[in-house]
Amino acid sequence: MKVGVIGGGQLARMMVPPAVELGIDIRVLAEVEGSSAAIAATAVGDYRDVETVLAFAAGVDVITFDHEHVPQSVLAALTAAGHPVHPGPDALAVAQDKLVMRERLSAIGAPVPDWARVRDADDLAAFLADHAGRAVVKTPRGGYDGKGVRVVSAAEDADDWFADAGDIGLLAEELVEFRRELAQLVARRPSGEVRAWPLVETVQRGGVCAEVFAPAPDAGELPVAARALAERIATELEVTGVLAVELFETADGRLLVNELAMRPHNTGHWTIDGAVTSQFEQHLRAVLDLPLGDPSPTAPWSVMVNVLGGPEGATMPDRYPTALGDRPEAKFHSYGKPSRPGRKVGHVTATGSELDDTVARARAAAGFFQI
Amino acid sequence: MKVGVIGGGQLARMMVPPAVELGIDIRVLAEVEGSSAAIAATAVGDYRDVETVLAFAAGVDVITFDHEHVPQSVLAALTAAGHPVHPGPDALAVAQDKLVMRERLSAIGAPVPDWARVRDADDLAAFLADHAGRAVVKTPRGGYDGKGVRVVSAAEDADDWFADAGDIGLLAEELVEFRRELAQLVARRPSGEVRAWPLVETVQRGGVCAEVFAPAPDAGELPVAARALAERIATELEVTGVLAVELFETADGRLLVNELAMRPHNTGHWTIDGAVTSQFEQHLRAVLDLPLGDPSPTAPWSVMVNVLGGPEGATMPDRYPTALGDRPEAKFHSYGKPSRPGRKVGHVTATGSELDDTVARARAAAGFFQI
Repeated sequence: MKVGVIGGGQLARMMVPPAVELGIDIRVLAEVEGSSAAIAATAVGDYRDVETVLAFAAGVDVITFDHEHVPQSVLAALTAAGHPVHPGPDALAVAQDKLVMRERLSAIGAPVPDWARVRDADDLAAFLADHAGRAVVKTPRGGYDGKGVRVVSAAEDADDWFADAGDIGLLAEELVEFRRELAQLVARRPSGEVRAWPLVETVQRGGVCAEVFAPAPDAGELPVAARALAERIATELEVTGVLAVELFETADGRLLVNELAMRPHNTGHWTIDGAVTSQFEQHLRAVLDLPLGDPSPTAPWSVMVNVLGGPEGATMPDRYPTALGDRPEAKFHSYGKPSRPGRKVGHVTATGSELDDTVARARAAAGFFQI
Repeated sequence: MKVGVIGGGQLARMMVPPAVELGIDIRVLAEVEGSSAAIAATAVGDYRDVETVLAFAAGVDVITFDHEHVPQSVLAALTAAGHPVHPGPDALAVAQDKLVMRERLSAIGAPVPDWARVRDADDLAAFLADHAGRAVVKTPRGGYDGKGVRVVSAAEDADDWFADAGDIGLLAEELVEFRRELAQLVARRPSGEVRAWPLVETVQRGGVCAEVFAPAPDAGELPVAARALAERIATELEVTGVLAVELFETADGRLLVNELAMRPHNTGHWTIDGAVTSQFEQHLRAVLDLPLGDPSPTAPWSVMVNVLGGPEGATMPDRYPTALGDRPEAKFHSYGKPSRPGRKVGHVTATGSELDDTVARARAAAGFFQI
């Protein structure tokens, strides 16, 4: 069984351990030499180049992804040549474009913030007028980790983006008053089986995921609703592999879909150490259309803290002599990248029976790398 | 941090996942192309050839091993050239030769079966006369998985081996009446820290490890004694990395050391899924002289069942469509090797809160691959 992953980032890297354990041959098409997934990189090239991608695909049984940026033209060439691609082009189209995502989610009746396609300052002015003078504007494509997202309070606040947006326009959304952010991850295989991990709480800082608490504390009935919602989205959109549904819990207790990602996701990294089947193992099973594993948690609480930045040019292992000695029970994950301010270079997970203690231990362990 | 592993078997393979997670660069000197550890193999060559091994060592920070067969002459060349080697040549010498092992263990007062060096049939006859006419004879070197071990009841039963043994002779041991076999694994780093996993029970079939129950059931005070014994052996012999102490629990309730292995060991595979820190992660930490991780179990019971043999030429993943569907909670490990009768091609681990149920689930999961 050979899985080909397009993209050599940390998500591809973290697919390697379960592939090795399961005896699945994993191969990566990386952007550059020395990528985060270099140990499995059998090719280096441009994922936008059809010939490069077809040549890579010829050596594997199924194609999947480290990111959602492969152009539809390349995906079409892959499927035309008979290569299984998971998630498939139609599903990926929804994750690639925030306007398409809002349209499809609205069409299937999933709860989303008020939104509109805005093509110029007049459109935006109208949207602002309907939403108490404030809105979030997003570029439909290419945003990540807070990039391509802007809170606006005047029609001209997005003029620079309109200049590049053309007839496609931008996405305007209501500025949701939320209590917190949550994420519901599920995996779906082509033959239809879906499995869900517990609903988690995510803490964002500057638009970047900073911490995840699994399961989401004090969530009442929300896990039931979130799970049903994510399962419905996965099924309706025919997602294959892992689907991450990022959610707002509104001030009045409703769930709204913020974003979708169709790949393993930062809010699921805790599953490596805290679930019977990690999101990375599950993604491999799903894209190979193998029976899915048990997503149950293995501890009452798991807390993941991202390692963001750290000393310029240093790596996490440079700090292991002190960090590992201080926290023998924490699980350290380094993505094999040198640090720079704000860069996600790894994460740390702690598990435990009390939430407060688990949070404290995870933060203490991660703290060794951020100073 | 770059770790070089000599030998490309499944033990090297299973070091890859924790190396990837921790951000440690792992490189393997494999015997052949397409080895079990091929994903990390940066060199292919003969581990008995000094130039090959020195060239491999030049690219890494520390050398460790998938097996204990690297000649002392090669180890001496490595240390002479300044390469850190863990475990070191003196410790490895004890694991490489069963006569040296018995001598060293006796010298430090570790409990062992009665033994003697026997150089001919007369020596063996004398040993048999002292031991009710039965004994175990072992070749000092090269044995594994029951090979090089023979139960004898007549002086001439080992004549074929004496012919090859020369002045070194053979190891004769009393045939221990044992209740069961146990294994105590510890890890020790060069600066002296030692950590112990729980004592486990091992079930051998035909001289090959078939099943492991962690922790050893109904063990009373044995875990305390086993741990103290293994820690003492690791410290006295200055073992670095994982040390496996295979033990007999005698019919009268004593512990006797059967064998030592200085590397991750089959009786510790359960730690991948059942302990906070697996033996493979701990071995990497130890040989890098990093602080050791918490070896605590994560479930009340873990049961590992080896996958031995299976249909000629098949691989474990061929059976995944049925096996994974039947046992979504089991953890499957394939060593990337085609099956042949009796060959260790993988293992399965189940964890749970009741031993009987956990054993049944692990056996059921492994059973899919052995028919």
